[in-house]
Amino acid sequence: MRRFEVEMNDLKNRLMDMSGLVQEMIKTAIFGLVNRDSKLFSMVFSLEKEVNIQEIVVDDKCLKLIALNQPVSGDLRFITSAMKINSDLERMADEAVNISGRAVNLLKYPELKPLVDIPKMSDIVQQMLADSIRAFNTTDAELAKTVLVKDDEVDDLLKKLTSDLKDYMIKSTDFETIQRAVDLMFIARSIERIGDHATNISEDVIFMVHGKDVRHPRAHVFKAEQQSHSDEGNTD
Amino acid sequence: MRRFEVEMNDLKNRLMDMSGLVQEMIKTAIFGLVNRDSKLFSMVFSLEKEVNIQEIVVDDKCLKLIALNQPVSGDLRFITSAMKINSDLERMADEAVNISGRAVNLLKYPELKPLVDIPKMSDIVQQMLADSIRAFNTTDAELAKTVLVKDDEVDDLLKKLTSDLKDYMIKSTDFETIQRAVDLMFIARSIERIGDHATNISEDVIFMVHGKDVRHPRAHVFKAEQQSHSDEGNTD
Repeated sequence: MRRFEVEMNDLKNRLMDMSGLVQEMIKTAIFGLVNRDSKLFSMVFSLEKEVNIQEIVVDDKCLKLIALNQPVSGDLRFITSAMKINSDLERMADEAVNISGRAVNLLKYPELKPLVDIPKMSDIVQQMLADSIRAFNTTDAELAKTVLVKDDEVDDLLKKLTSDLKDYMIKSTDFETIQRAVDLMFIARSIERIGDHATNISEDVIFMVHGKDVRHPRAHVFKAEQQSHSDEGNTD
Repeated sequence: MRRFEVEMNDLKNRLMDMSGLVQEMIKTAIFGLVNRDSKLFSMVFSLEKEVNIQEIVVDDKCLKLIALNQPVSGDLRFITSAMKINSDLERMADEAVNISGRAVNLLKYPELKPLVDIPKMSDIVQQMLADSIRAFNTTDAELAKTVLVKDDEVDDLLKKLTSDLKDYMIKSTDFETIQRAVDLMFIARSIERIGDHATNISEDVIFMVHGKDVRHPRAHVFKAEQQSHSDEGNTD
C-alpha cells in the first residue's frame, strides 16, 4: 500500500475511533439519566477531553495530508468531508456534556414523569449516528440517505415532548417542577441537535461519494436559477 | 495579481458578503422581536435561502482552489478556515431563523416583561460576530482574541435570564405565560449559540494567522502529555 493510502486509512480509523467515543458518551449520558445513576456522568465529562484532543489531531492530520499529497477529486472530498465530520462529532460530544450537566440537576429531585419519549428520541438519534458513521466507513451513500428521513421523526417527537412539558409547567407553581421541566426540555433539544449533526455527517458522506451537495435541497434550484442569469457559473 | 490571488480575494469577499447577510438576519430578527414588528421576519426567512446558496458556492470554491492550486501552509490554512467559517455563518443564519420563528409565536401575545437582557445579549454577540469577521478580513489575531473573552459575559447573561424566566413560570399557571417564557428561553439560547459560533470563527482566525490551534486550551496539555508517553507524535 502506498504511504498516502496508509495515511488515508489512518485518518478514517481515527474518525471511527472518535465516533466510538462520542457514541459511548451519548449512550452513557442517556443511560445515566434514565437509570438515575449520577456516577456515570463523570465518564462523559472525562471522555469529552479525549474527543477534544482527537478533534485537533484529526484536523492537523487532514491539513498535512492535503499539503503533502495535493489530492484531487474523490481523495480531496474525503479529506474535507473528514474535517467536517470531525467538527460535527466534537459538537455531538458537547451535546452529550450538556445532557449530562442537565441530568446532574435533574437527579437531585424525584422523577417528574416516566421519560418515555426521551429514550425513544435518543434511540433514534443514536441509530442515526451509527448509520451515518457506518455509511462513512463503507462509503455507502444509500445508507446515508436513510438517515436524512429519520430527522423528521425526531422533530415530531421533540414537538410532542415540549408540548407535554409545557402542560406540566402550567399545572405547577413550585420551583422543582419548573426546573425539572426546563432541564428535560433542554435535554430533548440536545438530543435533537445530535440528530441534526448525524444528518450533517450523512450529507457529507453523500457529497464525498457522489460529489453532489445535498444540503439545502431548495438552494440548488435557486443557485441554478441565479447562475443561469449571470456569468457566475463560469468563474467558479 | 496572479490568478490564484484573485481567486483567494474573491473567496474572502464572498465570505464577507455572506457575513453581511448573516449580520442583517440577526439584527432584523432581534429588531423585529424588540419592536414587536412581525413583518420583518419574512426578510429573515428569505435571506436564509440566500445564505444557503452562498454556503454551497463557497464550499465549492474552496475545493476547487485546493484542487487546482495545491496551496500549502498559510494559503491552505486560509482556505480550510474559510470552509469552517462558512459553516459557522450558515449555522448562525439558522439561529436567526429559530429566533424569528419563536418571535412569531411571541408577538401573538402581550409582552411578558421588558426584554432588557435579550437586547443586551444580542448587542454583545453581534459585536462578537462583527469583530470576528473583521479579524478574518484583516488577519488580526489580536482582535480575534478579544472576542473569546466576551463569551463568558454572554454565558452569565444567559444564566441570569433563564433564572428570571423560571421565576415567571413558577408564578404563573396559564398557558400564555409558560409559552412566552419558553419561547424567550430558547431565543436567549439561540443568541448564546451565535456567540459560540463567533468564538469558533475567532479561533479559526487565530489558527489561520499563527498556525496555532487555540481550541480546547486544556486539550493541548493532554495531547502533549499523551504524545510524550507514546510514539504517536512521530506519525502525525
